Amino acid sequence: MTPKTGYSRRMDSVRRSFIREILKVTQDPSIISFAGGLPSPDSFPCEELAKVAAAVIGESGRNALQYSTTEGDKELRTWVADRYRTKKALDVDPDCIVITTGSQQGLDLLSKVFIDPGDPVVLEKPGYLGAIQAFSLFEADFRIIPLGQDGPDLGALSEAVADGKARFFYAVPNFQNPSGISYTLEKRKGAAKILSDAGVCFIEDDPYGELRFMGESLPPVASFMTGRKVMLGTFSKISSPGLRVGWLWADPDSAHKMVTAKQASDLHTSTLLQAILVRYLKEYDIDEHIAKIRAIYKERRDVMAARIREKFPTEVTCTQPEGGMFLWAELPEGYSAMDLFDLAIAEKVAFVPGKPFFIDGGDACLRLNFSNSDPERIITGIDRLAVCLDKLLSAKTAGA
Amino acid sequence: MTPKTGYSRRMDSVRRSFIREILKVTQDPSIISFAGGLPSPDSFPCEELAKVAAAVIGESGRNALQYSTTEGDKELRTWVADRYRTKKALDVDPDCIVITTGSQQGLDLLSKVFIDPGDPVVLEKPGYLGAIQAFSLFEADFRIIPLGQDGPDLGALSEAVADGKARFFYAVPNFQNPSGISYTLEKRKGAAKILSDAGVCFIEDDPYGELRFMGESLPPVASFMTGRKVMLGTFSKISSPGLRVGWLWADPDSAHKMVTAKQASDLHTSTLLQAILVRYLKEYDIDEHIAKIRAIYKERRDVMAARIREKFPTEVTCTQPEGGMFLWAELPEGYSAMDLFDLAIAEKVAFVPGKPFFIDGGDACLRLNFSNSDPERIITGIDRLAVCLDKLLSAKTAGA
Repeated sequence: MTPKTGYSRRMDSVRRSFIREILKVTQDPSIISFAGGLPSPDSFPCEELAKVAAAVIGESGRNALQYSTTEGDKELRTWVADRYRTKKALDVDPDCIVITTGSQQGLDLLSKVFIDPGDPVVLEKPGYLGAIQAFSLFEADFRIIPLGQDGPDLGALSEAVADGKARFFYAVPNFQNPSGISYTLEKRKGAAKILSDAGVCFIEDDPYGELRFMGESLPPVASFMTGRKVMLGTFSKISSPGLRVGWLWADPDSAHKMVTAKQASDLHTSTLLQAILVRYLKEYDIDEHIAKIRAIYKERRDVMAARIREKFPTEVTCTQPEGGMFLWAELPEGYSAMDLFDLAIAEKVAFVPGKPFFIDGGDACLRLNFSNSDPERIITGIDRLAVCLDKLLSAKTAGA
Repeated sequence: MTPKTGYSRRMDSVRRSFIREILKVTQDPSIISFAGGLPSPDSFPCEELAKVAAAVIGESGRNALQYSTTEGDKELRTWVADRYRTKKALDVDPDCIVITTGSQQGLDLLSKVFIDPGDPVVLEKPGYLGAIQAFSLFEADFRIIPLGQDGPDLGALSEAVADGKARFFYAVPNFQNPSGISYTLEKRKGAAKILSDAGVCFIEDDPYGELRFMGESLPPVASFMTGRKVMLGTFSKISSPGLRVGWLWADPDSAHKMVTAKQASDLHTSTLLQAILVRYLKEYDIDEHIAKIRAIYKERRDVMAARIREKFPTEVTCTQPEGGMFLWAELPEGYSAMDLFDLAIAEKVAFVPGKPFFIDGGDACLRLNFSNSDPERIITGIDRLAVCLDKLLSAKTAGA
C-alpha cells in the first residue's frame, strides 16, 4: 500500500502546475508573457484598499486580527447572497455561503466532501488546470467531455453520467479557462436537464462571469438545475487575487459538510481580509470598479485579436471570447505548441501550451492571456509570436 | 464504496470542533469564557499593522495584491530561517520553508503528503484538536501516547513505532494545547532517539514556544532527530491569528511535495498578508513586542493559578505551565467535565471539557484559557467556576 518513497499514494496522481513553473521563467521582465492567468494590476483598487485596510485595523483591529468563524463573516456572506439575487435572480440564503481561501480552496473542499479514491468526476476538455490538480490529489477518475464553441458535447455528457456513479460535473460555463468558450443558453438548459435527470451534482465555477465586455449575460446553469448544485465564486477577478478570498454556495447539508472540512483545512479565511472587503464593498461602488476593469480588458482583447488576425498564419485558428482573460489558439494538425514554446522563449515571448489542460492530448493548442499586458506589449508580443509561428510552420513544411 | 449520504467516506471520520461550536455559545458578552484558544487582543500590534498595511498597499499594491508563488515570499521565508538559526541554533535553508495559510494548513498538507487511508499516526493523549481533525479527515489510524507532567510515555512511544508502519509522531512539546505540559530535556532526547532509530518522522508543532514567561527554553526535539522531521510555526501567537499566516520547515524533498499539495489546496497564502508581515518585521522589533505579550500572559496565568489554589476544592488538580495560554485541570475520579460545563454555562462561565482532546476518555479534564481574559474577569470567572465545582462535588457526595 504505502509507496516506497515514504509519501502517500495520492502524491503520485498530482502533477505540479506547469503554468506556475512557467511563471518562474517569465519573471524576466524582458519576456512578454501571455502565460499567467493574471488580472491586470492596473485594475486593482490600490488607493481604496490602502485607506480601507488602515481604517479597519486602526478602528477594529481587536476583532479584525482575531480568530473568527469557519463559515466566514456574516456581512460578507450576505453581500454574496444579495449579489446572486440581484445579478442572477438566484434565491440564496447567506447561511449557505461559505467564504473560502480563494476559489482554489473551494475545489479542495469539494474534493474532500465528495470524492473517494477512484470516484468518477466529469470534466470539460480542455479543463481548468487548478481543478484537475485538486481532483487528482483526491485520486478522482476523470471522465472527459469535449467542449465545442457553444459548450459541452451533450451526448458525451449523457454517456458520462449514465451509470449514476459520477460524483459531479465540474465546469466553467462563462469564458472558460483555458478556452474562453461560453455555453449557449441551449447548452446550459441541456446540461442542467441531463445532470438533474441523472441525479449528478453540478459544480459551476464562475470566476470570470462579471468580466463580460460584449454580448449578453446568460443565466447560470445552476438556475436550471433541479438536482444538487454548487457554485464557486471569487473576489480575485473583481477586486484582487492577492487577497485569496472566494466563496461557495451549496445546499444547507453540503455547506455544513464544507464547513467541517474547512475547519480541518485552515480554521477560517483571514478575518482581516474579510473585514477589508466588507468595508470596501460598503464604501465604494464595486459595479463602477468592475466597469473600469471591463473597459481595460476589452481594449486589450480587441488589440490582441486584431493583431493575431493581421499577423498569424491563417492556418492558426483563435477563439473570440466576449469576456474573461484568455484567447485560445490552435495550430494546424501535426504541430506541437511545446515546440512553439521553445521558439517563443528564445524570442522573449511566453504563453501556456495546451497540454496541461488536457488529461491527454491538446498538443496543438495554446492559451494566450490578454488581461495582464498593456496594448503596446500585446502588439510586440504577438509580432514576436508570429515570427515563431512562421518558423515552426515553415520548418515542418521544409522537412516534410 | 460510496456512502448513501452522497458524501465521501472521509466525512464519516471527522467531527466538527466542539470548541468552535462552544465559541458560538460564548459570543454572549455576559459569559466569561476560558473556552477559546484565543490570544489577547491587547497583544495585537494594531497601530503598527494599520500603518504598515496602508504603506504596503499604497506603495506596492500592484505586487502585493497580485497572485504570487506557492512556497511564499522569499523575504518572509528567509526571516523564518534566520529566526530558527538565532533562536534555536537550527541550520535552516529558506528554500525548505513553506509559508502556510495558518498552521492548520500545515496539518492539512502533512496529511495530504504522508497519510493514506488507514495509515497509523502517533498522537499525544490528550492531543491538539486541530491535528486530530486534520488527520481524521485523511482517515488516519491513531496510536495514542499518554502524556505525563514531563512529556510522553517513552515506553508507549517505542511500542507505537516498533512495527515501522507509523507515518509520523505529531507532538506539541512546548506548553501543549490542551495540557500546558512541556517536555523535559531527557524526554526530548529520548523521543528523538526512539523515532530516529525506528525511521519514523517527527512533526514538531511549536505555536507557543515564544510565549515562555518563566523557566528556561529547551532545544526543540527536532534538533536531536537524525531522521526525518518537520517543524510547524505560526504568526498567530506572536502577531495575530486573524492574518492566518504560518509556516512549515521540512527536508527539501518533503518541502517540494508540500508545495505541490499546497498548489492544489489554495494556490498560495495571501500575497498581501505576507507583504504586511515582511514590512512589519523590518520596521518594528518583534522581540520587544513578544516581551509585551509575555508580560500580559504571565500576569493572567499567575492570577488564574493563584485564584484556583484559593477557591477550587483541593481534590481538583491543575497544571502550572511556564508559558503558553492554557491551564489544565482534572476532576476527582468519577466526575464529568461535561456535567460541570452545563452548570458553568448556567453560571455564565465557560471552559472546554477535556473529551474532544482524547480519541477516547478524558471525561474528567477541563482546559482553561487564561490569555484572553483580563485579571478582573479571570477572578470573577474562577469564582463562578468554584461555585459550580462545589455544587458538582457535593451533589455526587450527597447522591452516593
